[in-house]
Amino acid sequence: MRKLRMGMIGGGIGSFIGDVHRKAASIDGMIDLVCGAFSSSVEKSIQSGKELGLPVNRCYGTFEEMITKEKELPENERMDFVAIVTPNHMHFEPAKMALENGFHVICDKPMTLTLNEAENLQSIVEESGLVFALTHNYTGHPMVKQAKALVSNGDLGKIRKVQVQYLQGWLATSVEKTGQKQASWRVDPTKSGIGGALGDIGTHAENLVEYITSLKIDELAADLGVFGEGRTLDDDGNILLRLENGAKGTMSISQIAVGEENNLAIKVYGEKGSIEWHQEEPNKLLTHWLDGPIKVYTPNGNNLYPVALETSRIPAGHPEGYLEAFATIYKGFATDLVALLNGETELKKQYPSVYDGVRGMKFIYGAVESNTNNSTWVKL
Amino acid sequence: MRKLRMGMIGGGIGSFIGDVHRKAASIDGMIDLVCGAFSSSVEKSIQSGKELGLPVNRCYGTFEEMITKEKELPENERMDFVAIVTPNHMHFEPAKMALENGFHVICDKPMTLTLNEAENLQSIVEESGLVFALTHNYTGHPMVKQAKALVSNGDLGKIRKVQVQYLQGWLATSVEKTGQKQASWRVDPTKSGIGGALGDIGTHAENLVEYITSLKIDELAADLGVFGEGRTLDDDGNILLRLENGAKGTMSISQIAVGEENNLAIKVYGEKGSIEWHQEEPNKLLTHWLDGPIKVYTPNGNNLYPVALETSRIPAGHPEGYLEAFATIYKGFATDLVALLNGETELKKQYPSVYDGVRGMKFIYGAVESNTNNSTWVKL
Amino acid sequence: MRKLRMGMIGGGIGSFIGDVHRKAASIDGMIDLVCGAFSSSVEKSIQSGKELGLPVNRCYGTFEEMITKEKELPENERMDFVAIVTPNHMHFEPAKMALENGFHVICDKPMTLTLNEAENLQSIVEESGLVFALTHNYTGHPMVKQAKALVSNGDLGKIRKVQVQYLQGWLATSVEKTGQKQASWRVDPTKSGIGGALGDIGTHAENLVEYITSLKIDELAADLGVFGEGRTLDDDGNILLRLENGAKGTMSISQIAVGEENNLAIKVYGEKGSIEWHQEEPNKLLTHWLDGPIKVYTPNGNNLYPVALETSRIPAGHPEGYLEAFATIYKGFATDLVALLNGETELKKQYPSVYDGVRGMKFIYGAVESNTNNSTWVKL
Amino acid sequence: MRKLRMGMIGGGIGSFIGDVHRKAASIDGMIDLVCGAFSSSVEKSIQSGKELGLPVNRCYGTFEEMITKEKELPENERMDFVAIVTPNHMHFEPAKMALENGFHVICDKPMTLTLNEAENLQSIVEESGLVFALTHNYTGHPMVKQAKALVSNGDLGKIRKVQVQYLQGWLATSVEKTGQKQASWRVDPTKSGIGGALGDIGTHAENLVEYITSLKIDELAADLGVFGEGRTLDDDGNILLRLENGAKGTMSISQIAVGEENNLAIKVYGEKGSIEWHQEEPNKLLTHWLDGPIKVYTPNGNNLYPVALETSRIPAGHPEGYLEAFATIYKGFATDLVALLNGETELKKQYPSVYDGVRGMKFIYGAVESNTNNSTWVKL
Repeated sequence: MRKLRMGMIGGGIGSFIGDVHRKAASIDGMIDLVCGAFSSSVEKSIQSGKELGLPVNRCYGTFEEMITKEKELPENERMDFVAIVTPNHMHFEPAKMALENGFHVICDKPMTLTLNEAENLQSIVEESGLVFALTHNYTGHPMVKQAKALVSNGDLGKIRKVQVQYLQGWLATSVEKTGQKQASWRVDPTKSGIGGALGDIGTHAENLVEYITSLKIDELAADLGVFGEGRTLDDDGNILLRLENGAKGTMSISQIAVGEENNLAIKVYGEKGSIEWHQEEPNKLLTHWLDGPIKVYTPNGNNLYPVALETSRIPAGHPEGYLEAFATIYKGFATDLVALLNGETELKKQYPSVYDGVRGMKFIYGAVESNTNNSTWVKL
Repeated sequence: MRKLRMGMIGGGIGSFIGDVHRKAASIDGMIDLVCGAFSSSVEKSIQSGKELGLPVNRCYGTFEEMITKEKELPENERMDFVAIVTPNHMHFEPAKMALENGFHVICDKPMTLTLNEAENLQSIVEESGLVFALTHNYTGHPMVKQAKALVSNGDLGKIRKVQVQYLQGWLATSVEKTGQKQASWRVDPTKSGIGGALGDIGTHAENLVEYITSLKIDELAADLGVFGEGRTLDDDGNILLRLENGAKGTMSISQIAVGEENNLAIKVYGEKGSIEWHQEEPNKLLTHWLDGPIKVYTPNGNNLYPVALETSRIPAGHPEGYLEAFATIYKGFATDLVALLNGETELKKQYPSVYDGVRGMKFIYGAVESNTNNSTWVKL
Repeated sequence: MRKLRMGMIGGGIGSFIGDVHRKAASIDGMIDLVCGAFSSSVEKSIQSGKELGLPVNRCYGTFEEMITKEKELPENERMDFVAIVTPNHMHFEPAKMALENGFHVICDKPMTLTLNEAENLQSIVEESGLVFALTHNYTGHPMVKQAKALVSNGDLGKIRKVQVQYLQGWLATSVEKTGQKQASWRVDPTKSGIGGALGDIGTHAENLVEYITSLKIDELAADLGVFGEGRTLDDDGNILLRLENGAKGTMSISQIAVGEENNLAIKVYGEKGSIEWHQEEPNKLLTHWLDGPIKVYTPNGNNLYPVALETSRIPAGHPEGYLEAFATIYKGFATDLVALLNGETELKKQYPSVYDGVRGMKFIYGAVESNTNNSTWVKL
Repeated sequence: MRKLRMGMIGGGIGSFIGDVHRKAASIDGMIDLVCGAFSSSVEKSIQSGKELGLPVNRCYGTFEEMITKEKELPENERMDFVAIVTPNHMHFEPAKMALENGFHVICDKPMTLTLNEAENLQSIVEESGLVFALTHNYTGHPMVKQAKALVSNGDLGKIRKVQVQYLQGWLATSVEKTGQKQASWRVDPTKSGIGGALGDIGTHAENLVEYITSLKIDELAADLGVFGEGRTLDDDGNILLRLENGAKGTMSISQIAVGEENNLAIKVYGEKGSIEWHQEEPNKLLTHWLDGPIKVYTPNGNNLYPVALETSRIPAGHPEGYLEAFATIYKGFATDLVALLNGETELKKQYPSVYDGVRGMKFIYGAVESNTNNSTWVKL
């Protein structure tokens, strides 16, 4: 099977998430990076491309140029899809143009700058018939898939309670004033949108709840915090949740939680059992049961659902981490692209979609609205 | 030094918390149980007393009888204090009568059935000049004392965020219908008051927040759940918190969280550091810092504040548990009684007080009010 | 039921293990301390007794005096048993005299100074018909009892491999030169015997292996370390084990393992399953299985064997610790004494015995012999 | 920079370790797979190559053919190095031939079938002037590098004690009789050599000890077990260690430890501090200190030595795992190859070498000799 050809938008050398996407795309040997508009400066774009081993003529100064020029290349040479790894305000336009020119899209989250853009993008994807994946990478962990399967198969019984948190501490001080690029755009509403921590990490938490429980968050009540001096966007949030089936819960997010690194964790309680998963120790799934002792599942360990088993790349006890889970999103995306190349019509869709992206934006908008109204309940 | 003489109200053989109080009172060798009104049935009270090695004439059928008769005994024989271990609706009257008859009181939580009773009791204690302790036992752990000291000494900086949870699963099914006595009274508003899980475990969570941070909860917004069939009191709750200094937080409590045993845990984030403590592994205090690696403190380990060091009974690595922390409350109470017997006037007051008891009742009432008004913010 | 009357030998105020024995004896309300020969100085003995609330006439200057005088007291007043909590060299004589005068004995470990004494004591106990218990306290944990039951019931299959460690760091520096009393006698062969760490902690490790597996250690090969400057006794040891059924294993003990507090831990692997237990987190028993996920048992949790369930004093999730496990040895001992007082002839013997004590001494002697011969195998 | 070109020997589709090498080689974007002799059957080799996206003419039936043919290709096309991922008996010949034809080599462990081969290979490497790396992948973890740095910088003081274990359970039953390919060759002395578990996992444990402590194992005393029915090679081992500086320790290895997945763990105790690391939770390094609390280091966290910091690919809290550590070996190897291409003469040598390979073989031979002589001490 030939390798798929990826064009990247954003992600110049030094970018965090661009490098993650490249590593994730490479692990399973299905994808080659063939071109990129890595930077708004053509010189920097070329420099990044060279370091990545690309020929100069495949390094572009703008996404518009890239899409236009690649389209003109012979079919057996041009890129198959674009990976969008720019800040939030630069997601919609490249995604739209790529889709309208026949290129599949894999895009970082949150999906867009505004809810309006998200809803537009949904229509564009639907009309295009192309594949669109959103990198809610945490859904790529084998133990997250096992958790979802335990819920879906009814093992936990009806879900009653959810606790989710996503805690970081890297914005505890005013790092954006030190020139830290990751921080600068995240605290800037023109680049991040109306949510700060909400968009950056809250959407992951929201997505994880809906992914594992297969239930939608029906309404929420949010109390957001802005602790960093001079910031206008939330850097902390405490949120009550009500799910569509009557379950209740809490979400706690923060980027000012000193000492926390990337502490995403979730607990889901049903009538018969419960699950607990921690991103920082992703290779364990704790489960509790009405009867019987605590059971701990591990990747490629005993008694897993097939969907969890299939996700592991290496034997039990050999930890996979962040990049592998991210790679699993790419693998799912690539698998569907290969299927299309092979003329298949039924896709597996093992990755977060444009609909997840719209949910994420609704979550951000709902939380901001609730917070503005002193934490009244808002329907999503 | 002579041992202090304890009279117990409630806690007949088979009771959970009565036995806990007895064991906790005995560990440090400062207290002897000398009498009891263990049950409303005099026969059962005598039977319980006999099994506990008491003479029949010190086993009473009612607390009124016990207080009256003990008062008539010679000073060197009569009880020094009463321990009240009955369900909530039987706290106020015995406490009041004991205090009015010159007996110190140690009482289980929540302090009373109603907020009104709590405020009355506060006045009675103040007028009596006697010692009143409330058994918020979790404040007795060395690592909780270390946590409080880290905050008080400014090591964490200004507090910004709190996460507290108290999760149990034992009411996940309708055990109250099976004749389980612990469950029956807890789901009965005439015995528990207006709060279910709120009173039983929520008050512990509230107290722990205020104890460790030395900050009061200023207001809360609560979404309570009633999941057990036929119940009228909350068996689950999700609560947003705002502390008096501007810090924000979440509280999650539940008695229907399947598989949870007694999962009380707290995280407190300041501007410079954070702490994390889990009741089920009470002998570790995790701390994170802006600079420097994670530090883990252990009882009698290195670099503790004196207040934490003094609380341990045995060397580092020899785990103390629930009973020892409970005993620490009794030890603080007994220490003050001994001081009074020795004619000292300055007490150390190393135990939760009637004021903590009033805070607990305000918390319950505030949470119920907020929940009734669809989670609006309520000042405590 | 009347309380049992305990006389203590050793354990003056300030002693570590004497206080532990007193607390452990008091928790379950079955035992009163009535007399003691707490120190070889009668003044110090009296002072200790007074602080413990004893009358002066029950505070003795020597164990001989105590045993003689107590025997002369009326039967309903005199002590029922002695607790021996002195350094090793002062175990045998008091135990012998107590037994020969009709008093039951509970004694700290290792049982005696020499193997010869241990074998003599075995005969004396056998002839006396009295109860003798040795405080290998770690066998008192509910999860250790569950582990033993899992092995005994064949759940793990035939045992193949054992890993045990007992690691402390408190002798990493020459604390014995600073006047630390606990250290001084432990590094002194006239008080400790021929083993240092071997006797102090190695015997616990050895006992735990034989208790949980119900298998005897058949032979061992030891490499002992003496790291502390000027010491003559081992403060570290690495030992190969062969059990009587063909299983193999390792034992690692140390008192110079910097930073270790009281890290006793054991893993036992059978043909079908395995168990893992850690003293510092005693309320978890990890089990692994050929088929099925990891199971974690907790005290009073689901699916325990009765022997484990019965050992817990408080509900699941309420941690019991070192003192409670120690108390369980006292409770077993007291239960048999009560049975004898009630004229019963069948005893439950739920505590380590004189035979365990002899095994411990054989272990010490075997390890020293092996080490002397450059780690050749020695039969126990 | 151009990518390096890798030719693989062994590792046809379905192989465990071949796939690991390919993924590890791809993560950092420095290496392309360009050819392979994936199987001794040319058909299978071609099939594997096709699935990996290779042209048919670069898929060879034997390593001899590959080396010969590749050498004939133009310099800008031919492979730069070979990766040897065959069973142990097929390491020496391909390595020798590759080196003698000017190709660098990266080889799986243990390095060879026999000690004699290992010593020969050392000479060949030395004479060739080419780069040879051995994939002791566990040395690639950031926290292992931090551990080594803590020792090297003297933070722990003089090393006194080491505990290392490598425990697996996958050979607990006779899986080799079920046709499991991974098991079949590992229990076969013609393919594995004289060590079973010793070679497969024991060498990793040995290498980790020597890597972290920078000390050589001076002598060992081994008690090996053969538990699987009909096996002739060890599947379990308990080993006493003495290091060159006088430190002592234990090693416990097993492939019949039911339920263990890949439990490699090490503790190193010095005079001033100690470290503890677990492969299954590789992103934590626990350290204990004579003074001060326990400190836990995390990748990209606070206060790391540069060598540890540089090893992480992604921010703190984003777990890296087995493949990333493996990739770090490849990255170190590739970095030196790039340096050579750039005409540099000073290499960084950040990977296990041929000398580590010889140590591993001496370890196997020493352990077998000791075991044959009933665990006498053998010098390495």
